[in-house]
Amino acid sequence: MALGFWGTPVASHRFGDSLQPKFMAFLNEHYFKLKAGYLFPEIARRVRTFAEERPELAKSLIRCGIGDVTEPLPPSAISAMHQAINDLAHRETFRGYGPEQGYEFLRHAIAENDYRRRGIDIADDEIFVSDGSKCDCGNILDIFGHQNRVAIVDPVYPVYVDTNVMAGHTGPADKNGAYEGLLYLPCTRDNGFVPEIPARRVDLVYLCFPNNPTGAVATREQLSEWVQYALSSEAIIFFDAAYEAYITDPEIPHSIYEIVGAKNCAIEFRSFSKNGGFTGVRCGFTVLPKSLVALTSHGVKKELHPLWHRRFTTKFNGVSYPTQRGAEALYTVSGQEEVRSLIRHYLHNAEVLAKALRSAEFEVFGGRNAPYIWVKAPAGHNSWQVFDKILKDIQVVVTPGAGFGAEGEGYFRVSAFNSSANAEEAARRFTNLKW
Amino acid sequence: MALGFWGTPVASHRFGDSLQPKFMAFLNEHYFKLKAGYLFPEIARRVRTFAEERPELAKSLIRCGIGDVTEPLPPSAISAMHQAINDLAHRETFRGYGPEQGYEFLRHAIAENDYRRRGIDIADDEIFVSDGSKCDCGNILDIFGHQNRVAIVDPVYPVYVDTNVMAGHTGPADKNGAYEGLLYLPCTRDNGFVPEIPARRVDLVYLCFPNNPTGAVATREQLSEWVQYALSSEAIIFFDAAYEAYITDPEIPHSIYEIVGAKNCAIEFRSFSKNGGFTGVRCGFTVLPKSLVALTSHGVKKELHPLWHRRFTTKFNGVSYPTQRGAEALYTVSGQEEVRSLIRHYLHNAEVLAKALRSAEFEVFGGRNAPYIWVKAPAGHNSWQVFDKILKDIQVVVTPGAGFGAEGEGYFRVSAFNSSANAEEAARRFTNLKW
Repeated sequence: MALGFWGTPVASHRFGDSLQPKFMAFLNEHYFKLKAGYLFPEIARRVRTFAEERPELAKSLIRCGIGDVTEPLPPSAISAMHQAINDLAHRETFRGYGPEQGYEFLRHAIAENDYRRRGIDIADDEIFVSDGSKCDCGNILDIFGHQNRVAIVDPVYPVYVDTNVMAGHTGPADKNGAYEGLLYLPCTRDNGFVPEIPARRVDLVYLCFPNNPTGAVATREQLSEWVQYALSSEAIIFFDAAYEAYITDPEIPHSIYEIVGAKNCAIEFRSFSKNGGFTGVRCGFTVLPKSLVALTSHGVKKELHPLWHRRFTTKFNGVSYPTQRGAEALYTVSGQEEVRSLIRHYLHNAEVLAKALRSAEFEVFGGRNAPYIWVKAPAGHNSWQVFDKILKDIQVVVTPGAGFGAEGEGYFRVSAFNSSANAEEAARRFTNLKW
Repeated sequence: MALGFWGTPVASHRFGDSLQPKFMAFLNEHYFKLKAGYLFPEIARRVRTFAEERPELAKSLIRCGIGDVTEPLPPSAISAMHQAINDLAHRETFRGYGPEQGYEFLRHAIAENDYRRRGIDIADDEIFVSDGSKCDCGNILDIFGHQNRVAIVDPVYPVYVDTNVMAGHTGPADKNGAYEGLLYLPCTRDNGFVPEIPARRVDLVYLCFPNNPTGAVATREQLSEWVQYALSSEAIIFFDAAYEAYITDPEIPHSIYEIVGAKNCAIEFRSFSKNGGFTGVRCGFTVLPKSLVALTSHGVKKELHPLWHRRFTTKFNGVSYPTQRGAEALYTVSGQEEVRSLIRHYLHNAEVLAKALRSAEFEVFGGRNAPYIWVKAPAGHNSWQVFDKILKDIQVVVTPGAGFGAEGEGYFRVSAFNSSANAEEAARRFTNLKW
């Protein structure tokens, strides 16, 4: 039997073949390459065990692990969503299927406010409204060929890696969890957690700034280098900007399209989860400029925009109408002020936590233009040892860096997504942490 | 260059190869096999042209084309969604990320009401809550291998076909729009629009009852034959039951799992779009029994449930919380009565329209256990000719059967999704239609 990419048997036994080497539906066995112990379930398991062993201590547990918002939705969004639900309660204002790519009112609000008002020329129909960045980051692979060489930063948001594994773009993982066939770009203390341009060329590169998990940002110069690399090697950058609202430094770009040439080499992913607090409401978007092209196997250049449009119309049916009205309201004057207030809240938490960690003599990164603080484990301790000690000694849940990739080993992530009271209490406990 | 399934070049030029036959990212060229003129955009184009040519007539246009609901959401859902939005307005009741597969409150309500109370043993965690059946029908292919032989009914909901084309499971389409590599199962007047069991074996079969577009239902005996076929050939049935709420005949199964053995061979797709009117709110679910297995390429049987679970957790982030509360409310006593009332409304429309079409001497199918009426075009007329004539003569928009596949040629579909006033007026016009 002929073998396709990464050992997938190809369809040599389709209709008309006399040979039928098997007698049952095949599954996608690339899934079995995925590591079983996904990070957050393993954290949950350890927390559960601790709570069973030390129930009296577990009562005061503070979670600074998973990056989920804690504060109520902005009042503007609440009010717009109530109004949208009232629309659905009356035949005259009822809406059924909407456009799969999003209502024009929202695509326009996004393109106008996030791009054109910042001097970036993005058309309304280059915005595709989705139910979240996680979905988009995985689904985008649908419109690309399986032959592409993929580069991924390390440490990394696991979804980039896992969706490539599931799509059959990798071989198996080695003992450090690195998959054969992916090019890993180390983000280390030495490079300020911004990866260096690779010496070899690749076809697809995932970048995420402000970064999850390190909290690092890329300067205009660094992003320009990446855009130059992508243009010269005709690669596509997947730019995850889910945390752009946390950028406080006026010199740091919010969008990859602030860099000249990026419209010819980058797809941007954005989310309302971490600015409007929409983690449970579900809304995000991709920006796919019409100028982006890629190759057929015969070497013909074609636009990617019609493919993404076709994917949306065929495999998706649009985001919930009340959700889209809620997202639209985030762009009103009051909505913008409410979003800024939420961001200030979480960034203040980050400041309080980072200060406490520093005072406890940890080496601390991030947390200035991002809701994540990336902390070096004391010498001689690995990620999970630190996780366990912090859980047992001060009942704070952090995220072990090793869960984000080999280069995350020896670090842990502290999330600033919390109430002020919890962040302050966690800070107080960090200050008293004895090593 | 080696060729993978259906002519995809395989990764013979990955890292480490000295040969680099190209210098740019590859796209997924299977998309170019898709026919450009998707059905509903072409209908929209013809309606637009008519409206420009005959603006005075176009004012009274009635749409019986696309299957979208028109009536307001059930009051129980409206009220539950308002309450859920209030939950998000306060820190104490705020919810961020929910479980990707759906909240337990909704999975339980579904499993209990749609299955266990009807004597079908489905566990809560065999329910996966999604943002709609269209997404599920496409996404389900992710967990299967590319080697499977796929059978599809004809006429057919285009999403089943198009998602297989996009995934590279077919060759090009012939002049009738039939794709190489798919097995088409004709649904004709002669077989009552229920396909016959194929002589050859296949791995994956798409069935949809009550059917879109024909409005046909399958009897218990017919479904039992299909389950027997799937069990004996170890195939998987994708059973789309999005319209089950329209079944009025007490002898017709609502779920494939009413058939003994189906839990070993079928995945069921359900939707809240056509019972609760959620086309714009977006909620559906799949049922994937833990007993379902499929093969690795080495012939090892593995459960499919963990794969679907992994796909949900990795490529999806759950349905909007207010939406899930709205769906839950459809299962309350008042919600159930409101859903029944909506169904009665649309089925009454179907009755009125079918009667009118019969009185105009059309041959009429469906519309009794389904919101769709399938109508034979008068001899000598094809689907699009009938579409054009009905548009011009009586300003009613129908759907030409040819848009659903080769076997749909010579038919048109009339949707009962409308207000009573519109359905009655359309019926009046059909009665007066001169051929």
